[in-house]
Parts: sequence; structure tokens; C-alpha cells
Amino acid sequence: MNRTQKQIIRALMAGPSSYWRLIREQDGHLASFTQEIKDMFRRGLIKYHNGYIHLTPEGEMEGHNQGLSPLQPLTCPVCAGKTVTLQGSFSRILKEFEKIVRQRPPARAEFDQGYVDPVSTVARVAVMYQRGDLENQDILLIGDDDLTSIAIALTGMARRITVLEIDERLVEFIALQAREKGWTNLSVYRYDVRDPLPRELEGQFDTFLIDPVETLPGIRLFLSRCALSLRGRGSAGYFGLTHLEASRDKWHAIQRLILSMNFVITDIIHDFQEYELEREGFINKNYPLVQKSFGPLPVPDINWYTSNFFRLEAIARPDIPEQENVPAGRELYFDDEAYATLP
Amino acid sequence: MNRTQKQIIRALMAGPSSYWRLIREQDGHLASFTQEIKDMFRRGLIKYHNGYIHLTPEGEMEGHNQGLSPLQPLTCPVCAGKTVTLQGSFSRILKEFEKIVRQRPPARAEFDQGYVDPVSTVARVAVMYQRGDLENQDILLIGDDDLTSIAIALTGMARRITVLEIDERLVEFIALQAREKGWTNLSVYRYDVRDPLPRELEGQFDTFLIDPVETLPGIRLFLSRCALSLRGRGSAGYFGLTHLEASRDKWHAIQRLILSMNFVITDIIHDFQEYELEREGFINKNYPLVQKSFGPLPVPDINWYTSNFFRLEAIARPDIPEQENVPAGRELYFDDEAYATLP
Repeated sequence: MNRTQKQIIRALMAGPSSYWRLIREQDGHLASFTQEIKDMFRRGLIKYHNGYIHLTPEGEMEGHNQGLSPLQPLTCPVCAGKTVTLQGSFSRILKEFEKIVRQRPPARAEFDQGYVDPVSTVARVAVMYQRGDLENQDILLIGDDDLTSIAIALTGMARRITVLEIDERLVEFIALQAREKGWTNLSVYRYDVRDPLPRELEGQFDTFLIDPVETLPGIRLFLSRCALSLRGRGSAGYFGLTHLEASRDKWHAIQRLILSMNFVITDIIHDFQEYELEREGFINKNYPLVQKSFGPLPVPDINWYTSNFFRLEAIARPDIPEQENVPAGRELYFDDEAYATLP
Repeated sequence: MNRTQKQIIRALMAGPSSYWRLIREQDGHLASFTQEIKDMFRRGLIKYHNGYIHLTPEGEMEGHNQGLSPLQPLTCPVCAGKTVTLQGSFSRILKEFEKIVRQRPPARAEFDQGYVDPVSTVARVAVMYQRGDLENQDILLIGDDDLTSIAIALTGMARRITVLEIDERLVEFIALQAREKGWTNLSVYRYDVRDPLPRELEGQFDTFLIDPVETLPGIRLFLSRCALSLRGRGSAGYFGLTHLEASRDKWHAIQRLILSMNFVITDIIHDFQEYELEREGFINKNYPLVQKSFGPLPVPDINWYTSNFFRLEAIARPDIPEQENVPAGRELYFDDEAYATLP
């Protein structure tokens, strides 16, 4: 019995669970989770009743045979495993950030948008602060539907914040905030990551932050653009990577790429980011996760989509890989592990 | 001004600090920290008074010029950045573990021993539990001066725990505990990591845990022995790695090695482990950190030595590198980044 099935069984030994909560309790990717759940139904280990998944007596016995016990929560209840809490001036920043993001444009599935919750977004900035990547630094964001640039601007600590964003609505929203708040150090430009990085941005930044698409060609493209923007040794980068739409094999390929670009990985914080995805809308759009599931799925009852937070540091001038094939169409966004992304 | 100097200045902007606390507030390695501090004295940015390092007016001005502000603590005060807290049965395990380790043999510097504090040790086991690497798993430890095997045994969750340890005193201590507590699944053998892994241990384990020496040949040797012990795809490994005796360049080399062995890095938790090193003894032994410092160092006032916690997962049968040159002497333990290790 593999890790995913064992993680599912021990969660259910603690009590019935929604499909969505089970996703949070396991470390597999969605394509494999979907299969494992089907397999467990087929073997009679679980059953579905009133919107919840239950362990059958056979499942209970299998759990005992596998030496499992009911899942005990051990994640820190205060920081939720993020390692940081929003103390001091960061508690004020969170409040102001929450007020601003209430007015933001709704997420657009065609750009693989889905917003990180405000606490996760400000916590990103807290980690950047801790590691010395915020104060007086020049920071580049490529794609900023989470509006992390605004959380950064609220700290008043960065020297320069530059946002490159494909979605005109977000460009306008961020520009409007910058004007209204008088943030002259925050600039935002419309940019498609498939285009070359503007020459005047090469070698100009200390830190980048992205939450890229989860395909390998997509991540390669995002990381290459960001790497080109950095000053060199000691420059840092942050990005989110799920284990939900990226298998451990894809992680391995991504990490090889990272090291080959002269970055070292200094931090990987598990399930750091929580996403506020659509709920009814998610079911209605019939994403692969919904379409390939064991049966009709109920509307999500929690924020079930999470990602891990990576920090990179350049040990030398970043080495940019050849862009042999820049994805022109939906393959930038979609591969066979993309289960919560529109094809 | 580099990251280390900036991290030192903002810490001192919040108030004078002992040398030892400053080490905790920065992410450089000790060889570089030692140099940066000397450089800052030379430039008149800091001064030493009554056992504490203070910012001079010049240092204060430099901090403002660099856009720095007094350091704000953001690390979660409840889990101390470990991501987990010892709730439920793990709180009982910590109490029992603390009772047992009070009787352990004192650390021996010649084996690069220095004990992880009990909370960090049990927290390691908590992370293993979370990821599904503990229950009913066969677990190998090579070198166990921290007695993590005992913390694992106290959970009652592992199927088999095997410890390979060079220090006869620890072998006896662990064996005694296993006999007294009736832990028939815990075995301990005397073993020098320079010897080949016993054939009967090859391919027998689901999880390994080590806290290896910090030289590259040493880490290669530890990881190779552990990799050989694993069952294959999905098997996991845990180890501690400092940023204090391993530069980011060494981290990069270690990460390349890890990926080439068919492991992916799934977690890196910053400053997860805190070590209870000798205090007077550390000064008296004249480690490179003491010997190369700006002047005579006071006795440490805190646990200043920390390490980051890595989790690896095998994506295929691990690929074992050729052991072209197994270090025969002190070079297993010592390289030019080893500042808290005896030459």
C-alpha cells in the first residue's frame, strides 16, 4: 500500500472526511489521488455517504493491518506550519492588505488564476523580510494575481517593486493602488512571459517572486525570465510549487533545472500557501479533477488547494537555459498532471 | 554591503547583542560571519563592550543608509519555526524522552558530537509522522548521538528501528534502553560509516535519518550508505544541514549530489534543529570559530548552533555514487568551512 493510500486511511480512521479535506491530508498529486480513491472504492475500503467519505469495516481492518492509527494533527495551530506569524508591523500590513484586496478583480481561469489567501500572501513577505530579501531591495514579480506587490509596498521597506502581468485588469488595479497610495517605487507593466524580458530589466533586481504555472516548460520559462533580471551571486528568488499538480518526478526535473541555473534551494516550506479557489464555479467548470473523480463531487467545503514555498539563492550569475520551445498555446498552462487547470 | 552584514546591522539596530545571538540572526556560514564581523570592527560600524556588540553612531548611520530598520521578530513563537508542535501523544513522548536523555553519555568532540535539544529531536519524529514515514516503517539511523531512535521507539509506531553508531558508549546506552523498555524492534550495532554497509541491510528500509558531518566527502559517504539501505521509489530520508559550517556553494554541491542519486528534496525547514553544545568547554577547546574571532569570545549565552532539516524522497531506486576516495582521517569531519568542529 502506497503513501497516499496510507495517508487517506489514517485520516479516515480519525473520522469521515470530505473529498476536499482528504486532499489536504495527503502528499500525492491529484492525478494519483484520484486514482487511489477509485482503487479504494473498488476494493471496498471506503464508501461515500451524504457528501462524506467513510472507512468501511474492511478499510478499518486494512488500516490496522498496515499499522496505522487515527491521524493526529501536529501542524502548529498558530502559524499553520508557515514558520512565521504576522506580528508587529506585519499585523497592521495584513489588515490594510485585506481591505485593499476586497476590491480586486475576480480570478480568471484561462490565466490559471486562483488567489492565495491574504495571510499566506503577507506571510510570503514576512519570510522575504526574515532572509534579508525585502529591505532596500529591488524586487521583480512576473504574474501577480495574488497582489503580493501590494503587500510588499505596504511594508514600505522595498526600494523598487516592478510587476510584469499579462492581465490588463490586474495591471490597472495595481497601478491604481500605487497612484492612490503614492507608492512611487511600484511600477506595473503588461507583459506576456512568452515575450523576451525587456532589456532594461536585465540584471536589475535583487529578488524575484513568482507563482508560476505548473508545467515544466512553463516553469522553465518563468525561472529563465526571472534569472535574467537578477544582479547575480546572493540574489534570491521565491516561488510556489504544488505537490497537487506536480508529481515528485516533475519536482525532480524542476530542481535539476534550478541547480543547473546556479541557484541553490535554501527553503521549502510545506503547504505554505492556501488558495481561495472558486467553490460552486470549480465544480461547474468541470476541471479534470472533477471530471475524472469517482463520481459527482460536492462543492468544496474548505480551501483545499495549497502550495509549497521555495526560496532560491544565486551562487553565481544565473545561467539561463536555451528556450528551445516556448509554449505558444495552452501547453504553457496544461500538462497531464494539471487537474485543477483548464485544458 | 552583503546580506550577512545587513542582517547583523538590523539585529544591532534593535539593541546590543552577544556574539552568539548575532550568529542566530544571520544566514551566512561561520567562516564568512567571522570575517564580516572583523570587517565591521575595522570600519568602525560596531564596538565591543561588556560582552556585548553594539552599533556605533557610524554603524547606525550605515544602517539607515542601507534602508534597514530594527529587526522585527517574525518567527512563530509557538513552534519556533519548526512547523509542528508536540501535541497529543507527542507531548507525552517529549516528557519521557527528556527523562531518558538526562542519563546519556556526554558528547565527544572527536566524533563531531553535539546534541540536538529534545524538542527538536521529537519534532523531527513529528515531521516523519506527518509525511507518513513513521508508522509501520523500517527506519535506519547512521550515527545517533541525538538518540532520535529512542524518540521513535517511544511513539510505538515504527515497525523496525536499526541504529548504526560508531561510539561504543551510545551503542550500549541505546541497547540498554531497548532492553529495559522491551523495545524488541530497536537494534543497535557498532559501525564506522567508512566501512561498507552490511549486505543484509541493503534494500531493507523505508526511511533513513542522519545528522551527518558537514564535509562534502562525509555527506556523500553518509548519503550513499543510507541510499543503499532503502527499498526504492517512495522511500524517504531526513538529515540536518547547517548553514553555519556549509556555505551556499557547498549546499549547491550537496543538492546536485542528492538529485543525481534519484532523490527529490521535498522539505527544507530553516533552523529547525537547535544544538545544546558545550559552553565553557567550547571556548576552552579553541575551535576555529573561537581562534579566528575578532578577540577573546565570552562563554555562549544561548544555543547558537542550529541546522536546517531536509526531507528527501526517492523517485526511483537510488543511484549510488562511486566512493572514489573514502576519507580515512580527520578530513571526514573537517574542511575549511568547519568552524565548530575539531581539526
